[in-house]
Amino acid sequence: MSSNLLRLEDCLEDSPQTRALIGVYERDCELLFNYSKGLNAACTRVANAQNELTLATQELSQKLKDYEHTKFSLSTDDDMISSTLQQLIPNVDEISSYNTVLHTQLVDNMAYHAKTFIETDLVECHRLKSSFYSGDKHHEEAAAKLARVSKKKPSEKGWQEATDQTYASKKRIS
Amino acid sequence: MSSNLLRLEDCLEDSPQTRALIGVYERDCELLFNYSKGLNAACTRVANAQNELTLATQELSQKLKDYEHTKFSLSTDDDMISSTLQQLIPNVDEISSYNTVLHTQLVDNMAYHAKTFIETDLVECHRLKSSFYSGDKHHEEAAAKLARVSKKKPSEKGWQEATDQTYASKKRIS
Repeated sequence: MSSNLLRLEDCLEDSPQTRALIGVYERDCELLFNYSKGLNAACTRVANAQNELTLATQELSQKLKDYEHTKFSLSTDDDMISSTLQQLIPNVDEISSYNTVLHTQLVDNMAYHAKTFIETDLVECHRLKSSFYSGDKHHEEAAAKLARVSKKKPSEKGWQEATDQTYASKKRIS
Repeated sequence: MSSNLLRLEDCLEDSPQTRALIGVYERDCELLFNYSKGLNAACTRVANAQNELTLATQELSQKLKDYEHTKFSLSTDDDMISSTLQQLIPNVDEISSYNTVLHTQLVDNMAYHAKTFIETDLVECHRLKSSFYSGDKHHEEAAAKLARVSKKKPSEKGWQEATDQTYASKKRIS
């Protein structure tokens, strides 16, 4: 892998080898981008499912509590269903609170980092790539202009302008 | 509550008190039916959420395994991401198998029983209630017919028919 290292000083030379190596990095970046998006979607799905489980458990707990407030004519205060529910409800509430903690941890420790990695690092790669290609195009145009000016009519002003433009676009790339 | 007990022998007498008591049982049955449907919906929601969490965890595990098969040009066999994923995947698979077990237990021990209770016991209550009212109506019509026959023209055949019909409908209710 060490032979594949892309060095900043090599880029300044702009050899075909460096360009080919940049292409390799770009392809890997694209692969990683797609893979990360898929992984992020999977992480988000897990976090959403955990959230839905939390909400569902809370609803179940509420339903169990509702039994006490359902006015059955024939029930007594000490009927078996009521007392069983009173024992069950704290357990459901406990599970519900575990689910809440799990959801928070999944969002904070998994979904958040996957999203941040994509939105900062990988999007930055895309930005740099497009900046490189636009700068490269600009440089080629400036170099072509300089070549024409040098060959045809060597006016001091035109030459200076073309040279400045080439220099500026070279600077922009590096 | 013991004073509210509905006894089969009291029903055979058909007193207003018994009818009022049947009404109380019917209203409680309706309340319990509605409550149980709500509880069943909550149970089903929890089971479905748990199922979605299982599927989401399995998808996440698959995504993590996919990394190995993504052909990055610049990666080596011993890169850190790969080795970290190899340690992570068994844990995700373990969580996935817990989720599968949880889902099976929720379906078998919670959702199934709530559904069965509603579909057998409570629906049977509804069937008995509608059967009672249709039998009661039939009996009233037969008794009215018998009263008319007895008063107007006491023919042996008409009287016998009406009496048989009344008897049959009385039997049908009890």
